[in-house]
Amino acid sequence: MPELRKDPVVGRWVIISTERSRRPTNFTPTTHEKTSHFCPFCAGNEEKTPPEVYAYRPGGGAPNGPGWKVRVVPNKFPALQIEGTLDRRAEGLYDKMNGVGAHEVVIETPSHDQDLADLPVEHLEQVLNAYRERALDLHRDRRFRYVLIFKNHGAQAGATLEHSHTQLIATPIIPKILQEELDGCRRYFELKERCVFCDIIQQETAENAGRRIVSTTDRFLVIEPFAPRFPFETWILPRQHDASFHVLSDIGELKDLATALKDTLQRLNRALDRPPFNFVIHTAPVSDGDIEYYHWHLEITPTLSRVAGFEIGSGFYINPTPPEDAAQYLREVAVEA
Amino acid sequence: MPELRKDPVVGRWVIISTERSRRPTNFTPTTHEKTSHFCPFCAGNEEKTPPEVYAYRPGGGAPNGPGWKVRVVPNKFPALQIEGTLDRRAEGLYDKMNGVGAHEVVIETPSHDQDLADLPVEHLEQVLNAYRERALDLHRDRRFRYVLIFKNHGAQAGATLEHSHTQLIATPIIPKILQEELDGCRRYFELKERCVFCDIIQQETAENAGRRIVSTTDRFLVIEPFAPRFPFETWILPRQHDASFHVLSDIGELKDLATALKDTLQRLNRALDRPPFNFVIHTAPVSDGDIEYYHWHLEITPTLSRVAGFEIGSGFYINPTPPEDAAQYLREVAVEA
Repeated sequence: MPELRKDPVVGRWVIISTERSRRPTNFTPTTHEKTSHFCPFCAGNEEKTPPEVYAYRPGGGAPNGPGWKVRVVPNKFPALQIEGTLDRRAEGLYDKMNGVGAHEVVIETPSHDQDLADLPVEHLEQVLNAYRERALDLHRDRRFRYVLIFKNHGAQAGATLEHSHTQLIATPIIPKILQEELDGCRRYFELKERCVFCDIIQQETAENAGRRIVSTTDRFLVIEPFAPRFPFETWILPRQHDASFHVLSDIGELKDLATALKDTLQRLNRALDRPPFNFVIHTAPVSDGDIEYYHWHLEITPTLSRVAGFEIGSGFYINPTPPEDAAQYLREVAVEA
Repeated sequence: MPELRKDPVVGRWVIISTERSRRPTNFTPTTHEKTSHFCPFCAGNEEKTPPEVYAYRPGGGAPNGPGWKVRVVPNKFPALQIEGTLDRRAEGLYDKMNGVGAHEVVIETPSHDQDLADLPVEHLEQVLNAYRERALDLHRDRRFRYVLIFKNHGAQAGATLEHSHTQLIATPIIPKILQEELDGCRRYFELKERCVFCDIIQQETAENAGRRIVSTTDRFLVIEPFAPRFPFETWILPRQHDASFHVLSDIGELKDLATALKDTLQRLNRALDRPPFNFVIHTAPVSDGDIEYYHWHLEITPTLSRVAGFEIGSGFYINPTPPEDAAQYLREVAVEA
């Protein structure tokens, strides 16, 4: 059973994966390119994954068979285990608990050669709907406090399988950066009685502003944030204040998000020659429900420069590209209709 | 002039380097190997760096000439500028200030082919003494709140020059992770009236403990921490409680630290085949002086797996190597006398 352990100084929880422990000799660098190797995520190989927990099959068909467009399966090598109790306990001054949680994979397309940015908007909408359906389901498990939805695209961004996919990890703790955001939003709300993200949206869209705007849709604003850690770090912010991603109320809202996400990924692809990237959906924790001070959003970070350990070790980032310049590049690149 | 900008949600300051702005086409991956290219840090090329601010010349000799063993120079391409005032100001709800600071390079050896771990202990002691002397000097500048001392070793760990060196950045803000440590230590002290690092040392060295100890010297304890983010993350903790690195009182203490550091780097080299790594000295801020609740230390993180954006974006780390296993490997590798 993996363990969740808490750093006694800064309070950060980490997963210590005790069952697939890597010996020193196992740290040879991994590289991968588009190969013809066997892929368990491709259409026809459904029996090579654990049984699916969700699928979009527009033409119908049996579970774990063909005909799906989007498919969600438990991770075959999960970072956390779904069975068991948390068993919170001390080890002297340290705190730990069992590594209980869910770890699922959203296979975004049956085709090995399609990336998320290549999918038609209607298909991308179904991918986002799969995120929402799985988040809704995982929010019902009272052992979990957070459902983290994230994508690693490209080996340099941490993807270990090249077939386009997204991961969901449901955890009994709130990941540190999300907790910091929640705390920051609450402090701002206590001071101003307003949501900080709503204020950011208002300031970025005010007359004579707009220098950091990449694009807009009816319901979303795409910006380079004021103080980005990374070149071309890009945020997709819903204009309407909602704490949680999974409460997106109708398919029109999902479609608008799909449009904004596809447009943004295509702009990044054009400007940066199809970079590796990560995105993380920042949303409210499970138990807090519709908290008034938080505002869900999606953060995309292209992997352009290697993040040095000094930046991770100090939390101090040096960004060589002003967000105003990045926004201008991304506005100006032509995007197919 | 670079800018320091503060994220309005989580309060993290980043450096936006406005003068060497990188266009999208400038993000081609950089690789480097031991080459015969010109190196400005090598003996004989002293005039290719800005004039030195410190040097160890055991045999004497003029500044910026030969004969040095350790040499400290301003960074030729500094992330922050030494001249100017902070000029703190608002941009609507955002906060920023001028990117004022010091950025120096400690050239650890005149030889291009020596790594820090290869230096004799007496030489390494002089490198550490150079850190201390420069930290002492930079602490006198009242514009600065923190002196960050860190090393990137190897291209994969962010080093852009292969000649072994350490960097010092003096900043008018406290880097985020250091601020979190300070806050965590203060909260623990308020609760317990004890230093959390002193308690960690006590627990790790207690009878029947020791599972996470790598090695010990008279004055230092080398451990794998209880909740490490990375495989083989290693901390060097002074047994005596001191808030600041630069108050190390005598050369004996520096020599003991040099011994512990050399031994640790050699163990990591043997166990992990000379990995790229980073270290960061965690020490008290400039203005806080000898605060009772903080305990300086050095954190080493080998670069074994790529850190995915999801981990940076969520603060949630999955570590495949339990620290107890890593400590055992490091204890068992043979180290030359």
